[in-house]
Amino acid sequence: MRQAGRSLPEYFDVRGDGSILDAIRVPDRATEITLQPVRRYGVDAAILFSDIVTPVWAVGFGIDITPGVGPTCDRPFRSADDLQRLRPLDLDADLGFQTETVRNLVAELDVPLIGFAGAPFTLASYLIEGRPSRDYAKCKALMMGQPELWHQLCERLADLAIGTLTAQVEAGASAIQLFDSWAGALRPEHYREYVFPHSSRILSAMGDLGVPRIHFGINTGELLPQIAEAGADVVGVDWRTRLSDARERTGGTVALQGNLDPALLLAPWPVLEREVRRVLDDNGGHPGHIFNLGHGVLPQTDPDQVKRVVELVHDIGRAGR
Amino acid sequence: MRQAGRSLPEYFDVRGDGSILDAIRVPDRATEITLQPVRRYGVDAAILFSDIVTPVWAVGFGIDITPGVGPTCDRPFRSADDLQRLRPLDLDADLGFQTETVRNLVAELDVPLIGFAGAPFTLASYLIEGRPSRDYAKCKALMMGQPELWHQLCERLADLAIGTLTAQVEAGASAIQLFDSWAGALRPEHYREYVFPHSSRILSAMGDLGVPRIHFGINTGELLPQIAEAGADVVGVDWRTRLSDARERTGGTVALQGNLDPALLLAPWPVLEREVRRVLDDNGGHPGHIFNLGHGVLPQTDPDQVKRVVELVHDIGRAGR
Repeated sequence: MRQAGRSLPEYFDVRGDGSILDAIRVPDRATEITLQPVRRYGVDAAILFSDIVTPVWAVGFGIDITPGVGPTCDRPFRSADDLQRLRPLDLDADLGFQTETVRNLVAELDVPLIGFAGAPFTLASYLIEGRPSRDYAKCKALMMGQPELWHQLCERLADLAIGTLTAQVEAGASAIQLFDSWAGALRPEHYREYVFPHSSRILSAMGDLGVPRIHFGINTGELLPQIAEAGADVVGVDWRTRLSDARERTGGTVALQGNLDPALLLAPWPVLEREVRRVLDDNGGHPGHIFNLGHGVLPQTDPDQVKRVVELVHDIGRAGR
Repeated sequence: MRQAGRSLPEYFDVRGDGSILDAIRVPDRATEITLQPVRRYGVDAAILFSDIVTPVWAVGFGIDITPGVGPTCDRPFRSADDLQRLRPLDLDADLGFQTETVRNLVAELDVPLIGFAGAPFTLASYLIEGRPSRDYAKCKALMMGQPELWHQLCERLADLAIGTLTAQVEAGASAIQLFDSWAGALRPEHYREYVFPHSSRILSAMGDLGVPRIHFGINTGELLPQIAEAGADVVGVDWRTRLSDARERTGGTVALQGNLDPALLLAPWPVLEREVRRVLDDNGGHPGHIFNLGHGVLPQTDPDQVKRVVELVHDIGRAGR
């Protein structure tokens, strides 16, 4: 469960105020924050505490994470000149803190560590819009109006993703997750033309490293076949699409991850229990399912609710469903 | 094209600053604003200038439309006591201005006028959240945690929708559109249990009046069968779902409306032209298609781009596709 930490009091104790990047770039803090939800919830894997913009930030594009807003750029990506602000990664100099965090974690954890990166569409949307967007209007206008520049941008972003993921795997991460959280804003033909080649290149490079690859987005009901085809071993399914439908659309070739609506963690326990069982029942006992939320934990979530869900899923799993 | 006006300079001349409700409640202004896009673009129908919150505002719930934000409530809906703030409509006293606007329009227009209302889920989301939401967390928590109260709220909202729509039809509107813009935030089982009965009741009442019924939402790819089944003659399809897929999911029982991505109006004309043709080609010449955007016109849209799209669609239509 990504961002599981942000509903935990112990998270805010360690993280402090200011940009989340101030916690990400300090290995001791990032290590501790990664461990917190594993300790509290007993989940089956840890996910590195970082952010999808970390590599873009590390090469000095000029991006920050503004508390209460999200990723923001003072000078958004506008023209070919801005490509220079996305130079190749120097893994040691730029992401040494992350490598150290991963090594610390692998030494401490007795569950697998999942590394991750942002996919080109989602990152490009922040770079072009300069902040979170509802309509991706500037992003799509550049994508459709200047396709060469769009592809150049995505190539650089794919290189950054391959760089950070490779570093994480080499430092000991057991699996990787590629977050294309907002790709569901595109129709299938546009995804195919403008996004698929880049995400596919990243996932293919990870396949060469031999690690399992999870490919995640929300609102991706119509894109699931392509998201699977791009090279995923596991496809994230938000709560809108039933697992049974997702299984059909992906042709049974991949495992699925999801798909509880995170808002349900705010419902009373009997409702939440019913809904967890609904997801598992809809999965029909298929072994290729990683139970998870369909998106990040909402900040106002009561950690005890998360804990009960983890216990319930473990109980049902042990009972041999 | 709903909200077509908000990219027009003549709209801002008439509307002035302040809440959009100040323009909606003055028949001469609302009439003029409704006519503007018809005059400028030569579209085949007009849609009443109003807002989905108009009836809720008119009965004194305490809702406004804050410029740059959207619908806001100082005292959001929290408990059964708040039901009292949703008294039944007195059509003449509460919505007399709207009836006058519709009568004016029907007298002036030589194309059909489409009336509309907000559907219970989308309205409830504003009333409960108190403002536009990304996650509908409070709304879903109330829906799942207090289902009786949820259904009582939706019954009142359905009554308001039936009231305003009936008044619009009796004053001369030729068709109605039910906007459940945000219903796509729900998974199919939840839509069925918490939303379908209420939207279905509204659409059934409109069927009794004998007017064509358009049922619209975005992100509704997984809900299309139910949105059709709720009683629509026409189902809106945003740009994420291809018309060919939507046709399959709705079993060919309804006409479809859409499905150009509004962001494409910001792309250069050759791209926009290609994309309009893509939508029409995907429709495959099926007669049950109302060409439209998949969602509202973005404010930064150049009106000339809209005009060219209308002309292109008309040209292709006349050529007998």
